[in-house]
Amino acid sequence: MKITLSQLSFHTGNFAENTAKIISAIQDAKQIGSDLIVFSELATCGYPARDFLEFDDFIQQALDSILAIASQCTDIAAIVGSPRVNTLSKGKALFNSAYFLSEGKITHITDKTLLPNYDIFDEYRYFEPNKRFEIISYKDFKIALTICEDLWNIIENPMYPTSPMDELIKQGPDFIINIAASPYAKTQIADRQKVLSSNARKYQLPVIYVNHIGAQTHLIFDGGSCIVQANGEILQELNYFKEDSKTFDLIKKNQSIHIQVDNPNPIKSRNHYEDIENALVLGIKQYFQKLGFKQAILGLSGGVDSALVSYLACKALGNEHVWAILLPSQFSSQHSIDDSLALVQNLNIQHEIIPIENTFQSFLDTLGPFYKNTPFGLAEENLQSRTRGVILMGLANKFGHILLNTSNKSELAVGYGTLYGDMCGGLSVIGDLYKTEIYDLCHYINREREIIPANILSKAPSAELRPDQKDSDSLPPYETLDALLNLYIEEEKGPAQIIQAGFDPILVQKILRMVNINEWKRWQAPPVLRLSKKAFGPGRRVPISGKYLS
Amino acid sequence: MKITLSQLSFHTGNFAENTAKIISAIQDAKQIGSDLIVFSELATCGYPARDFLEFDDFIQQALDSILAIASQCTDIAAIVGSPRVNTLSKGKALFNSAYFLSEGKITHITDKTLLPNYDIFDEYRYFEPNKRFEIISYKDFKIALTICEDLWNIIENPMYPTSPMDELIKQGPDFIINIAASPYAKTQIADRQKVLSSNARKYQLPVIYVNHIGAQTHLIFDGGSCIVQANGEILQELNYFKEDSKTFDLIKKNQSIHIQVDNPNPIKSRNHYEDIENALVLGIKQYFQKLGFKQAILGLSGGVDSALVSYLACKALGNEHVWAILLPSQFSSQHSIDDSLALVQNLNIQHEIIPIENTFQSFLDTLGPFYKNTPFGLAEENLQSRTRGVILMGLANKFGHILLNTSNKSELAVGYGTLYGDMCGGLSVIGDLYKTEIYDLCHYINREREIIPANILSKAPSAELRPDQKDSDSLPPYETLDALLNLYIEEEKGPAQIIQAGFDPILVQKILRMVNINEWKRWQAPPVLRLSKKAFGPGRRVPISGKYLS
Repeated sequence: MKITLSQLSFHTGNFAENTAKIISAIQDAKQIGSDLIVFSELATCGYPARDFLEFDDFIQQALDSILAIASQCTDIAAIVGSPRVNTLSKGKALFNSAYFLSEGKITHITDKTLLPNYDIFDEYRYFEPNKRFEIISYKDFKIALTICEDLWNIIENPMYPTSPMDELIKQGPDFIINIAASPYAKTQIADRQKVLSSNARKYQLPVIYVNHIGAQTHLIFDGGSCIVQANGEILQELNYFKEDSKTFDLIKKNQSIHIQVDNPNPIKSRNHYEDIENALVLGIKQYFQKLGFKQAILGLSGGVDSALVSYLACKALGNEHVWAILLPSQFSSQHSIDDSLALVQNLNIQHEIIPIENTFQSFLDTLGPFYKNTPFGLAEENLQSRTRGVILMGLANKFGHILLNTSNKSELAVGYGTLYGDMCGGLSVIGDLYKTEIYDLCHYINREREIIPANILSKAPSAELRPDQKDSDSLPPYETLDALLNLYIEEEKGPAQIIQAGFDPILVQKILRMVNINEWKRWQAPPVLRLSKKAFGPGRRVPISGKYLS
Repeated sequence: MKITLSQLSFHTGNFAENTAKIISAIQDAKQIGSDLIVFSELATCGYPARDFLEFDDFIQQALDSILAIASQCTDIAAIVGSPRVNTLSKGKALFNSAYFLSEGKITHITDKTLLPNYDIFDEYRYFEPNKRFEIISYKDFKIALTICEDLWNIIENPMYPTSPMDELIKQGPDFIINIAASPYAKTQIADRQKVLSSNARKYQLPVIYVNHIGAQTHLIFDGGSCIVQANGEILQELNYFKEDSKTFDLIKKNQSIHIQVDNPNPIKSRNHYEDIENALVLGIKQYFQKLGFKQAILGLSGGVDSALVSYLACKALGNEHVWAILLPSQFSSQHSIDDSLALVQNLNIQHEIIPIENTFQSFLDTLGPFYKNTPFGLAEENLQSRTRGVILMGLANKFGHILLNTSNKSELAVGYGTLYGDMCGGLSVIGDLYKTEIYDLCHYINREREIIPANILSKAPSAELRPDQKDSDSLPPYETLDALLNLYIEEEKGPAQIIQAGFDPILVQKILRMVNINEWKRWQAPPVLRLSKKAFGPGRRVPISGKYLS
């Protein structure tokens, strides 16, 4: 049997476009004599469709898509993810389903059993878990069809009481298919390969895996669909961060299954920062595409964060679509301007220099009667940052551009940023990278030639909102801060555990308090492209008005 | 048996304060000879604790609280909600539990079965559903102990396949206790009374209901704990929007249960707008208290939204803690200033007049080289709104006040507001009230004397960001807009259904598109005090970069 893995990018709610893409892929697969083509989870409607799933109209459009696709499935079968109505009298309104389409109609439906409901996942919000297990017979093969999380319960202390494959294996399947919408995170590729290999080995069956690719607001789906041998070896991997397709032969000989792939492409060792760069570029690119925008604008401070975002924006949108604005004040150093200009030259992007001093002074004059007899402090610093924000938004609004936010995870964590100032923007590009990771990524980008000017990477970070200010005036060194934050945010360790890991108790108390009292700012932050297992945004939900470690 | 219902306000994560409150209530109950005191769901840690529940340290503190409370439970029993670790090898890490404490120790634990995971609820994110059903024997009574949602599955087409009471009833309980954290919404009080009465009637048992009271960021818990007779009659209701406590006698005579209440306080008919006003006042009050702030600042436009928020802030914080700022531009009408000054006088609050013209002009000068040859448009309007935002935040930051946001639900829905401008603020007070509801609430407030100046209520709404601007220039009348939005947002109707309800198809398409393309702004909006079953914020999760009705 010839099987085609079709790894495509879908646009949430864009049924016409998604359906046309699926049908076009089916036609291509028919041309090369494929017997079965496999698409990713919830392919008709995109993933995650979130509360759009609560609209009957949306679900009806998904069903209409399935029927349109089914009509094309003659001389070929297709597996397509789509939501479907739960027609039982009890339970949630929907199932997260995989339709098996052949002979021009729906011939089988498999529903998802294990519904992830942690981190950025909310599937139990919409879907009823499956309790029916039935393998699919097609062309002399018996297929165990599963959906994403269904294969992820094979760890110790599993999160779910049941595992679908433990049921399906009783019916003697020949191989496993898993259709997924599994987003990228720094550790996810390795975790996913391990899970798929473990399933293959545990059940002694090949695994055919088709993942979603593309970015949906804050989530980046990396693809990496693959074919796994029954011994756990990954025989063939599809591209990461790109649409891709691959057809192979599955042959049954003496009750044993052989996989035959032309030009096998086994997994290769991955470069951590190459993956992060590709993820962010895809995240920016599809955010603009899907919203129908072309042009990015951003403020250049002379620091490493805005330099990195400029580079990534150029890769995603083309350097002709990136507009860099320098907004110096009386506290800006000459090297900040020079370094920014060097960057602009390296990237070959349009730039403007718009001094903020006059408007900042106008705010100071206006507020003078109230500010008099108070020392220059955070309020005055914020005024500068917000003046910049207003100018950048003024240009973005006038010309229909999207302002890119350049906040990093370290500063978002401790609240070292101005809400409505440098926290402005339609998309936070590097808000899930700690400052130390940002330096490492820049060094990776500079591996062959200097793109980010060396001076930007070597000088001490500063917000330049008062004379001779340095980040280190109010924060510990970033190596210390980031390691501490990682324990608290990603690892969810409490203060005792963090102190035990070797951090100063007073520093731990101070930093955790800073994180918690600044939740009100993060609530209003732009969507952050997710790179870690705990990014700020929908994956990390904490109270604002709580009193815990604060 | 004497039973005390203890309806208290808890602070999320503030274990010391919550535990002290619970222990103090137990001591009071002991003094009056109570045999059993009942507290609300997750009382030790507050509700919702959200991802704080993922910290071992947090769960340990909850257990420490339970042990400290248990040690006080001599000569009295207490039911206290608290999270607990799932010690089974499978399933989610925690249970949402009700501890039965007596004889100085934990004598029984009941775990929640039905875990709400819709709207603002995320309980399946943290908790494993209970599958063990056991009634509690105490002082010759058999108690069916349930937790909030456990009683809510008695509708047609229930959301959950099982109902805990269907199991517990088999063991012959004498009465039902339900401990809850059920937030207020406009229809919730009636729905809740109906659910409790239906349970009493269905199982022919009295129901003792203890709800949480207090506000947690965007959620307002209204209390309304009560005692329901086996015939469904609500015999006694505790206060709404206030802490309260009530003790009554439960008497067993000839296998039948009698409830004896001194000064019974049966349910009374409610005033819709009185409830909304009380909810919002509680929401503001506890947001400030729990964050440790005293003073509110807000911008007065001369319109109805900021007038209403000023009034509510005065009720919540005291008029001496509300600072009103008028920020006129060249487009502000004299009546806006006069109406604002009349309001300020009615409320007796401090005010300032800070003209924005100079700073607005400074932005125009700065942006002049880029704006030249473009018509005055949205970008210029936004500049004014953002200039006001920066000034208000400049005062809030300097003096440690919280800026109250005055956006309404109609404008948040269609994106008729400036991000980082009038969308600024720490808390959106009326962001879950449509414009028409705001007028109705103001008329209710003015029922005895004119508090909101009549002119504010009679003039046509205008943003006053260009000469002679009116909201009706770009929006349909608010009666039409709000009715349409309600069908789409609260009722989740699709375009065909809305058109069928009598709305113009072109208008429907235009408005739904406005709602969907403005999701990026709402993502960055302040927390909105929730009053409806579908408020903007964590209760309504839709993609930004989707393509649906947009």
